[in-house]
Amino acid sequence: MKLVIVGSVALDTLATPAGAVKRALGGAATHAAVAASFFTDKLGIVGVVGDDFPAAFPKLLRSRKIDLGGLSQVTGKTFHWKGRYEGDMAVAKTLHTELGVFAGFDPVLPAAYRSAPFVFCGNIVPEIQSKVLDQASRSSFKVLDTMNLWIATKKKALLNAIKRVDAVVLNDQEIRQLTGVHSLILAAKALLKAGPRFVLLKRGEHGASLISKNEYFHLPAFPTEKVRDPTGAGDSFAGGLIGSLTAAGRVDKGTLRRAMASGIVMSSFQVEDFSLWRTVKLKRPEIENRLKRLRAMTSF
Amino acid sequence: MKLVIVGSVALDTLATPAGAVKRALGGAATHAAVAASFFTDKLGIVGVVGDDFPAAFPKLLRSRKIDLGGLSQVTGKTFHWKGRYEGDMAVAKTLHTELGVFAGFDPVLPAAYRSAPFVFCGNIVPEIQSKVLDQASRSSFKVLDTMNLWIATKKKALLNAIKRVDAVVLNDQEIRQLTGVHSLILAAKALLKAGPRFVLLKRGEHGASLISKNEYFHLPAFPTEKVRDPTGAGDSFAGGLIGSLTAAGRVDKGTLRRAMASGIVMSSFQVEDFSLWRTVKLKRPEIENRLKRLRAMTSF
Repeated sequence: MKLVIVGSVALDTLATPAGAVKRALGGAATHAAVAASFFTDKLGIVGVVGDDFPAAFPKLLRSRKIDLGGLSQVTGKTFHWKGRYEGDMAVAKTLHTELGVFAGFDPVLPAAYRSAPFVFCGNIVPEIQSKVLDQASRSSFKVLDTMNLWIATKKKALLNAIKRVDAVVLNDQEIRQLTGVHSLILAAKALLKAGPRFVLLKRGEHGASLISKNEYFHLPAFPTEKVRDPTGAGDSFAGGLIGSLTAAGRVDKGTLRRAMASGIVMSSFQVEDFSLWRTVKLKRPEIENRLKRLRAMTSF
Repeated sequence: MKLVIVGSVALDTLATPAGAVKRALGGAATHAAVAASFFTDKLGIVGVVGDDFPAAFPKLLRSRKIDLGGLSQVTGKTFHWKGRYEGDMAVAKTLHTELGVFAGFDPVLPAAYRSAPFVFCGNIVPEIQSKVLDQASRSSFKVLDTMNLWIATKKKALLNAIKRVDAVVLNDQEIRQLTGVHSLILAAKALLKAGPRFVLLKRGEHGASLISKNEYFHLPAFPTEKVRDPTGAGDSFAGGLIGSLTAAGRVDKGTLRRAMASGIVMSSFQVEDFSLWRTVKLKRPEIENRLKRLRAMTSF
C-alpha cells in the first residue's frame, strides 16, 4: 500500500440547476480515492458504511483498483447528505445531514496500510484525524483537509492535527477563518508557522496555489464551461494531487507542481457531471490533454 | 506618438492602515501612463487639470518622458478624490469626490496623437470614451476600462463603446454586473460576443486572465506581502500591459502574454507605497526580476 485515504464514504441526494440525484455515491474519501486511482493502483480507503450501502458502489471502487480492506460495513445507516446548489452553484446549501454510522467512525488502519508513505486525511473531526496520524506515524507525506465547522468549534484540536502533517488543504474562506488574516498570501504564511511545510490553497474558479516558506506556485482553474454538479471538486483536487505524488514516489518542487496540476485537472472533470459519473469514465489521454492545455494556459 | 492614454489626472487624499497622503498625484491616466513609461517613451496623456495642479506633477510626468501635449490646464479645480481603505484594503471607501474641471472633460487628441497605434481609454463617461474612439480611428489596438457606476447608469452607451475596442479591462465584479453571468469564464465569453476580441480580467489577489474566443491565459498576482496603498493597481496593470504591447509593436499571442505579465508586475510595485512613490523609483532590472519570478511561479 502506497496511499491511504481516510474519510467519509457517503450517499448524496442533491439537486443543482442541471438536475438531481438520489442516494448517489459520494463522500470525501470516495472522491479523493477515485481521483487518485488514475495515478496509482496501490491505494486503499479507510471509512465506514452502513448495511444500506448498495453493493454496486464497492464494486465500482474495486473496479478502480481501490483496496477496501479498511472500509468497514456495520449495522446502521450510511452517512447521507441532502443538499442543493442554486444559481452559480458557488455554495452548497445543506438540507439535511444524517451521519448514521459515520457518527461513530473510529478509523483503524489495516496493518498493510500503516507503512504507506502517503496519507490523505479527509475532513473529519480533528481528534479523529489525530488518531489516524497516530497510526500513520511511518508515513512520509501526510495531507490534511478540514472544514469551517471544525475551525469554528474545534480550533485547538485542529491546530494540533495540523502541526503533525506535511500539507494542509484549505479554501480561501477557511484559511481566512483559521488564521484571522484576510490576505491569502499572508494567511498562508501565518499557517506555515503552525507546522505544515505546505499550504495547498483552493481558490475555486480562481485556481489553486501551493505556498511553502520559500516558494509560491499558482495555477488557474481549468476553464470548464460545463458545470453540472460541484460536489467533490475539492476532494478530487486533493485526490488527484496526492495520487500524482504517490505515483512519483517522492515530494520535490517538480513532483509537487505536477501534482497540483493533476489535482486541478481531476477537479475540472469531476464537476462536469453528478456523483462520479464523469470521473469514472475518464481515459488517461483525456487527463494528459488537459494537463497539456493547463501548461499552455500559464506559460509566457 | 505610439501610445495615447486618456483619462483622469487627479489629486488623491487618502488614508490606509499604513498611512495617509494629502493631494498626492493620482488619476487613472497618470497611473497607467507612468506604468507604461517603463516600456515605451513614445506616449502621451490626454486629460485636464485645474490651475491648482502643483507644477511638480507635470515635471514628474515629463521626467518619465510622458508627452503632455494633450494635458490641458484650465481655470478651476483639479479632480480631487478623498478616500479611505480599511482592514484588508480590498475596497476603497469614497469620502468625497470633487470632479472640478474633470466634470467638463471633453478630450481632444492633438494631431500627432491621432495616428498612434495604441490607445488606452481610461474609466470616464462612456459617451466621452466614444468621442475618444472617434478621434482614434486609425489606432490598431484600443483598450477600454470602465467602472460599476457606468455599468449601472449608462450600460447602453458603455456597450456602444465596448463594441468599438479591441480589449476591455474589467474586474470580476464589473464583468458579472455587466453580463449578468456569475461564472467568470462564461461572463467573459458573453462579453466577447459584444464586440471586443479580448477580455482582460482583473481578479485582484487572484491575478488576471486574458480571454479570447479561442484562448485562455491566466497569471497569478505577484505575491506582494507589503501593501501600503492599493490605489492605482488596476490602472498600473493596464498601463504596464499596453506599454509592453506598444514596445513590442504588434499584438500576438506571445506579446499579449508578456504584456499581461508586465501589467501584473507593474501593479505589484504600485501597491507597495502611496501615490506613485514606489513606481517612479523603479529600475528596469527590478521589473525584469519580477517577470522572471512570475514565470517561475506558474511553470510545471
